[in-house]
Amino acid sequence: MYPESLKILIDNLKNLPGIGSKTAERLAFCMIDFDKDKLTDFSNAISNVRDNINKCEICGSITDNKVCNVCLSNSREKNIILVVEKAKDIYLFEKLGIFNGVYHVLNGLISPLDGIGPQDITISKLLDRINNDNITEVILALKPSIEGETTMQYISQLLKSSNVIVTKIATGVPMGTDMEYIDSLTLEMAIDERKNMN
Amino acid sequence: MYPESLKILIDNLKNLPGIGSKTAERLAFCMIDFDKDKLTDFSNAISNVRDNINKCEICGSITDNKVCNVCLSNSREKNIILVVEKAKDIYLFEKLGIFNGVYHVLNGLISPLDGIGPQDITISKLLDRINNDNITEVILALKPSIEGETTMQYISQLLKSSNVIVTKIATGVPMGTDMEYIDSLTLEMAIDERKNMN
Repeated sequence: MYPESLKILIDNLKNLPGIGSKTAERLAFCMIDFDKDKLTDFSNAISNVRDNINKCEICGSITDNKVCNVCLSNSREKNIILVVEKAKDIYLFEKLGIFNGVYHVLNGLISPLDGIGPQDITISKLLDRINNDNITEVILALKPSIEGETTMQYISQLLKSSNVIVTKIATGVPMGTDMEYIDSLTLEMAIDERKNMN
Repeated sequence: MYPESLKILIDNLKNLPGIGSKTAERLAFCMIDFDKDKLTDFSNAISNVRDNINKCEICGSITDNKVCNVCLSNSREKNIILVVEKAKDIYLFEKLGIFNGVYHVLNGLISPLDGIGPQDITISKLLDRINNDNITEVILALKPSIEGETTMQYISQLLKSSNVIVTKIATGVPMGTDMEYIDSLTLEMAIDERKNMN
C-alpha cells in the first residue's frame, strides 16, 4: 500500500530495538519531510558507522581506530582493569571520571539457560591480558543478576591462585530511592554487605 | 568521548521525533552490533526515500512516481474527494477499504496562532481540482480541533455557492470508550449531532 521505498525504510526502522510497526511508520513519515541534505547526512552516518567502527583490539571497546583512546592513553593506569558486560557500559564510568584504569569488555555474560558459556565471551582474552600486562587489580562491574553474579564468581575462581586482587562493585540500595521500592533481594544484599560506621 | 562516527549517528537519530539523547544512544549502540549488510540496507533505504519519494502531482499524497496509485487507478470514483491534513492520513482510510474516491492532502491546517493561513496549505489547488474535475462531493476528514474546524469552515464557505456537496466526518464518542473518559467538548458535540433512532 505504501510506496516501495517508504515500505523498505519502515522495515529497516523496525529492526531497531523498541521500535514497533506504528512507531516505525511515524518515524518514516516524518523522515519524508526532512530536507534532502538531512537524509543524505543520516544515510552517510549509518554507512560511516558500518565502515569505521571497530572493536578495540585490546579491550573490546568501540573505536574509530584499531585501538581505543583509553588503551592508547599514557595517563591511564594500565595495571587496573575494570570488567564490563557491554562496550556501552564503559561510557557510564568515563562520564563519572573517577576511574583511571583500563577496561575489558566481555561482550556478554555467562548464561547456561541461553546456552552462553565462558568460551562465548572474552574471558580467555581477559586472562591473557592479566597474565601478560602486569595487572594488579581486576574490578568486576557486571550487573547484579544471576548471569552477572555467575560470571563474576567464575572469573574470581579462575584468578584465585593468582596474585591479582579481584573486587566487585557494591550491591545495595541506590541513592535517593525510597526504601519501600527496593526489591527484597537487593535489601538482603544491602544488609549482608552492611558497613561499620564507628 | 564516543568515536566520531558514532557521535554523528547519535546526532542524526536525535533528529527523529520522540527520540531523545538516551534513546538515540541506545539505538546507535544497538546498530553497531548489526551486521554490515543490515547497515548497508538501512543506509540505502534512507537515500532511496530521499531520491524516490515525491508528492503526487494531483493529490499531494506520497508516491514513488509522479502520480500516486489512487489517482492513477481507473476503478476509483474521481468525482468524490476526501480531504486530509497529512499524506499519512490517507493510509488510515485505505486500510479501512471503505472509501473508493480520491484524496486531497492539505499539508497542514489553518492556524492563525502559528501564522498558517489558507495560502500556506493546498486549498487553492483543491479549488482548482473541484472546478476542473467534475467533483460532486468533498468530504472533509480533518481532526476536530480548533485548527481542523477552522479549516473545514473555511473550505465549506468557499464552496457555498458551488454545486458541490460538502460533508465532514462525524464528531462524537469513539467506539469502545468508557463515557467517563470523554472530554466535555466531544460529549457536547455528540449530543448536538445526535441521531434519530426510530
